[in-house]
Amino acid sequence: MKYQYYKPAILNHTKLIQYIEGINDRRCFTNNGPLVRELKERLEAYLGVKNLLLVSSGTVALQVAYKALGLKGKIITTPLSFVATASAYKWLNQNLCFADIDLDTLNLDPSDVTKHTSLSCNDAVVATHLYGNPCDIASFKRLSLRFENKTIYDASHAFATRYGGKSVLSEGDASVISFHATKLFHTIEGGGIVFASNDDYKRAEKMVNFGFDHQGQVMEVGINAKMSELHAAVGLTVLDDIELMVDQRCEMVEHYLTCLASYGIAFPKRQEGVDRYSPSYMPLILESPKERDLLCNMLRAEGIETRKYFESLLHKQTAFTRLSVNLPKAEIIENRLLCLPLYMDLKKADITYICEQVVVILNKIRQKRLAEKTC
Amino acid sequence: MKYQYYKPAILNHTKLIQYIEGINDRRCFTNNGPLVRELKERLEAYLGVKNLLLVSSGTVALQVAYKALGLKGKIITTPLSFVATASAYKWLNQNLCFADIDLDTLNLDPSDVTKHTSLSCNDAVVATHLYGNPCDIASFKRLSLRFENKTIYDASHAFATRYGGKSVLSEGDASVISFHATKLFHTIEGGGIVFASNDDYKRAEKMVNFGFDHQGQVMEVGINAKMSELHAAVGLTVLDDIELMVDQRCEMVEHYLTCLASYGIAFPKRQEGVDRYSPSYMPLILESPKERDLLCNMLRAEGIETRKYFESLLHKQTAFTRLSVNLPKAEIIENRLLCLPLYMDLKKADITYICEQVVVILNKIRQKRLAEKTC
Repeated sequence: MKYQYYKPAILNHTKLIQYIEGINDRRCFTNNGPLVRELKERLEAYLGVKNLLLVSSGTVALQVAYKALGLKGKIITTPLSFVATASAYKWLNQNLCFADIDLDTLNLDPSDVTKHTSLSCNDAVVATHLYGNPCDIASFKRLSLRFENKTIYDASHAFATRYGGKSVLSEGDASVISFHATKLFHTIEGGGIVFASNDDYKRAEKMVNFGFDHQGQVMEVGINAKMSELHAAVGLTVLDDIELMVDQRCEMVEHYLTCLASYGIAFPKRQEGVDRYSPSYMPLILESPKERDLLCNMLRAEGIETRKYFESLLHKQTAFTRLSVNLPKAEIIENRLLCLPLYMDLKKADITYICEQVVVILNKIRQKRLAEKTC
Repeated sequence: MKYQYYKPAILNHTKLIQYIEGINDRRCFTNNGPLVRELKERLEAYLGVKNLLLVSSGTVALQVAYKALGLKGKIITTPLSFVATASAYKWLNQNLCFADIDLDTLNLDPSDVTKHTSLSCNDAVVATHLYGNPCDIASFKRLSLRFENKTIYDASHAFATRYGGKSVLSEGDASVISFHATKLFHTIEGGGIVFASNDDYKRAEKMVNFGFDHQGQVMEVGINAKMSELHAAVGLTVLDDIELMVDQRCEMVEHYLTCLASYGIAFPKRQEGVDRYSPSYMPLILESPKERDLLCNMLRAEGIETRKYFESLLHKQTAFTRLSVNLPKAEIIENRLLCLPLYMDLKKADITYICEQVVVILNKIRQKRLAEKTC
């Protein structure tokens, strides 16, 4: 494949070796060691957030957020997200509901949340900033004021998104993020939670180390969700270059948009009032599932790998099918999304080439369709 | 502190750097990469087991074992284990019961399991091979034949234990193990599950990667429990030296036992028919909680760190107190356990010295008590 869909950036070997020397010298490999604490401080400073808890994955971050917020009720979430946004809670045997999306931004539609279910102070709305595009945060705030529900944002696509002069990770009762190797900022495996309240943060801090208090007593049930020093070391090396990476990838996304602008391809509509979009994905909305599949296959034949991200709607996955609900707007978008390659090795000329191929192939597909219609 | 309770062995820096070079060259950081597959194969060969699934922690290993075995009912477990043995299931909002221990081996007593609750094919007995000492496996087998319940062993202390000519990890419907940095064999953070059935293994293999099947569909709810390539690299370097480590630590334990033998200190009784005990801990059973605490404090004053392992009985921890149950044998042993230092840096002379201190201090304590009684 000439262009893979994604290549993680190579880690800075020299820096990583130095960190490993330190880890060995201290013989401190995990359990909230100095590198995890350093990464937490540096990330808080970089993002301009407080109460950031580093954990072992984005999935467990969702679970810890739910439990630390003291929730016992259901989750209402979007059908258009990575499966963990929903399955993290189902793994805990919690109740789950889905609500419909906004057809412009593709994010969870606040006005649809209470259509299918009631909301209480024991429930949480779990909304994803899809492709780094912030949700309708103001409406979710109004919703939580009215129903006293909690709001958890899955900000896994939105590491670098800034909205209203601050990181989008500072929104909601908790914002959760994945630091998986495929993400803009990563620790290979890892995740984080930004809590609005310091009390919730402190509760979660105990929870991720089995619930132990300072006397070694287990006051409430916890889990092992500790980030290791080795994974934190990776995060520290990646963080050194993050601003450069964000800038370069923002330029790549803009170049994609410029190249494709005149061709009439649809993209998710960007939320208004955003200072910076996290350049995490380059999604296209194709006209039909058939067009999406044809484009995907024909690009592959030209050596360009893409990703059907997301392949299916969550509420239609077999794992969730008992939760039957009618989500007509999500159905409209189903199987029409395709993400183009986006990673550090791509040059401007590569993107130009990929866009040319997209346009040529889409022209062929659409002309053929037109011809078939005319016949 | 002259003698810490535990020091993890220093990692082989040269080997680790070579592995990291490979990881960077392949740009494969996680998602069941070649190092995870290599570690799985080498561990299976070393232990002589099949169907070993590597995961991100011992805690999630317990959860995955439960779910992959298709269980929906309760867990009956021991009050004398690390908290995760019980809390991993409580985190999933599963029902939990405790049964009493055997006063000789300190392991879960098979004859007590059905005293407090019924057992069905949806339930699991979760028994820990405490300090690497195998449970009464034959009786648990009879129990599962009679009640059709599943048996999950927490073998986190028993990496090197061999029983009836094979690894104790091959026992039960699933044996679960932690590879945390404090363990004999470790991957810094990590764990494993050995399934009796290949079907269960295959189900779990999907589960730990969000439940995705080969077509990217989510047929049943999963989690992210993937071991990273970096953690697998650590495991590979540790595994190179494991037989040497096991031999040296077996010698250390034997030297401890020899030095303390004539003094009339109690130890957990070793299960009969064991080929090799995993030299994971050096536990003493003191005569009373008061004696245990005095010994701990006075050893600390002499620069010898010990660990009250386990400090409390699980069923009396605040996190579990709703599960009221009377476990008189566990009560007898409560707060009487103390583990002595055990790690690679300890020399024979160090152990002799530690034992001398233990004997001197215990003599003082016991003579003082005798004097008080006589008065």
